Amino acid sequence: MTAAHPLRRVILTGASGLIGRQAIAPLLDRGFEVHAVARRAEASRGNLHWHAVDLLDEASAASLVKDVAASHLLHLAWYAEPGKFWNSPENLRWVASSLALARAFAEAGGTDLVAAGSCAEYDWDVAGVCEEDKTPLKPHTLYGVAKHALRQVLAAYAPIARLRLAWGRIFLLYGPQEHPARLVPSVIRPLLEGREAPLSHGAQLRDFLHAADVAGAFAALLDGAVEGPVNIGSGRAASIRDLAHIIGRELGREDLIRPGALPDHSPALLVPDIRRLRDEVGFRPAFSLEEGLQDAILWWRGRSS
Amino acid sequence: MTAAHPLRRVILTGASGLIGRQAIAPLLDRGFEVHAVARRAEASRGNLHWHAVDLLDEASAASLVKDVAASHLLHLAWYAEPGKFWNSPENLRWVASSLALARAFAEAGGTDLVAAGSCAEYDWDVAGVCEEDKTPLKPHTLYGVAKHALRQVLAAYAPIARLRLAWGRIFLLYGPQEHPARLVPSVIRPLLEGREAPLSHGAQLRDFLHAADVAGAFAALLDGAVEGPVNIGSGRAASIRDLAHIIGRELGREDLIRPGALPDHSPALLVPDIRRLRDEVGFRPAFSLEEGLQDAILWWRGRSS
Repeated sequence: MTAAHPLRRVILTGASGLIGRQAIAPLLDRGFEVHAVARRAEASRGNLHWHAVDLLDEASAASLVKDVAASHLLHLAWYAEPGKFWNSPENLRWVASSLALARAFAEAGGTDLVAAGSCAEYDWDVAGVCEEDKTPLKPHTLYGVAKHALRQVLAAYAPIARLRLAWGRIFLLYGPQEHPARLVPSVIRPLLEGREAPLSHGAQLRDFLHAADVAGAFAALLDGAVEGPVNIGSGRAASIRDLAHIIGRELGREDLIRPGALPDHSPALLVPDIRRLRDEVGFRPAFSLEEGLQDAILWWRGRSS
Repeated sequence: MTAAHPLRRVILTGASGLIGRQAIAPLLDRGFEVHAVARRAEASRGNLHWHAVDLLDEASAASLVKDVAASHLLHLAWYAEPGKFWNSPENLRWVASSLALARAFAEAGGTDLVAAGSCAEYDWDVAGVCEEDKTPLKPHTLYGVAKHALRQVLAAYAPIARLRLAWGRIFLLYGPQEHPARLVPSVIRPLLEGREAPLSHGAQLRDFLHAADVAGAFAALLDGAVEGPVNIGSGRAASIRDLAHIIGRELGREDLIRPGALPDHSPALLVPDIRRLRDEVGFRPAFSLEEGLQDAILWWRGRSS
């Protein structure tokens, strides 16, 4: 595939994260030379080059960007500690380092920047089916405010720096190697161990996407010409209770699911309008929800055996 | 005055700037121990301590903030090169360093943060008489976007860090030691030299405030309990042509003013609603426009003699 394109070189940040590690394969498949950045490097091979760099160290980040001289930047790195990231002061550092990274990238000759936004940018009091250019942007958390603020500055900077900027707004995701405190593992793990899985009321409608599909959507976004915000989702709404019961059926332990055991004040409906992703970017997920959850279960089974 | 308060210590950034240098006296008058920060330090005396620190060097800035352990931060520093600042990538660095500064300040025990915003945060297509909480915030320049984005992140961070945050939105200002490319010197200087002073059409209505009054307003904002955005202005609208003619009369050279000689596409009316500043902060300017312009003329006369 490489032969069909001029050399395109991408810096992938957050490369060891839930989405980042799944982004490597689709980026290689699309003919990119991939420069994966994480605090700990893994083994380089072929067109995949790992770099151990702490992006919060501005000098190291600037030096990396200058050395690699990439045409593309897929910026997924952020502070993501479950429970803590919503209102952590670390969000301030990630705004700052993301701005420095974007500028260094542009000044090193970069042309295409795709970064990870969030459904937390939308106003959750009115969210419903979120449309990129219509749903009010009024985040209620420091994380959402930080992402929204970063996007505003990058969007104003992009034309000045002659960057194409696309901004993928991530909704809910799951996959192998998830932090155990996240939703899907919090159902899979107890059921695998024959324990009860406590849920909130569970009627909240969400759009769950396998991390490999989130990563695939970002790779498609990078490998295209679309600009601006693009919601990342499957286009299928499922309730949290539905999700738990799919897992329960797969494991033969639906009896252990306990809806109503946990408090929840999140919106009843929070899903993306995915027309831009489907029709303009041309991306469709590979996993159905059932298949994706089977994949996650498989990974947790591997861990527990 | 100091005896009436517990020790209050303020870090003043941008202390050698147009507003910053005028902020020292009112802060001292209000009983603050003032730690003035600029790239070049001046002579310390009494309760005024100068620090030579480049705020864009995050480590130096963090070290200063930790050493001073101030209760208050008045953050005026920003990139302000006339003509260039509107769309310079330097705006990205100032967002980043301002976030780092605010966090270091809060973590060193600071409680009150006042920072400089701008009328450029408002949507100039609909601006008119700008009200802090009603006029749409839709900046058209990278500078305005950067200030607006910074405010959003700081406003979300403040309650988490237990900071009081007030945000002074500066409109038009002038004063001694202005950059010669700015509006008021661009009229005073040619008239002093007997040359023509080219203007745009000049009918644009603005609110001009002497830098000492802008600084006084910020000192009052710091020395109070008001939170959120506060417009900084005199409450008096004057056209650019009015302003030029006040200067012309003062210098006896109204005949040299040339309205219509320069292009302009800025809003017809862009002035602040100043009720919050007047009624909640309790600030009133010391200079009338005539007196303020006389003061600026005096300074330029001193330079040319």
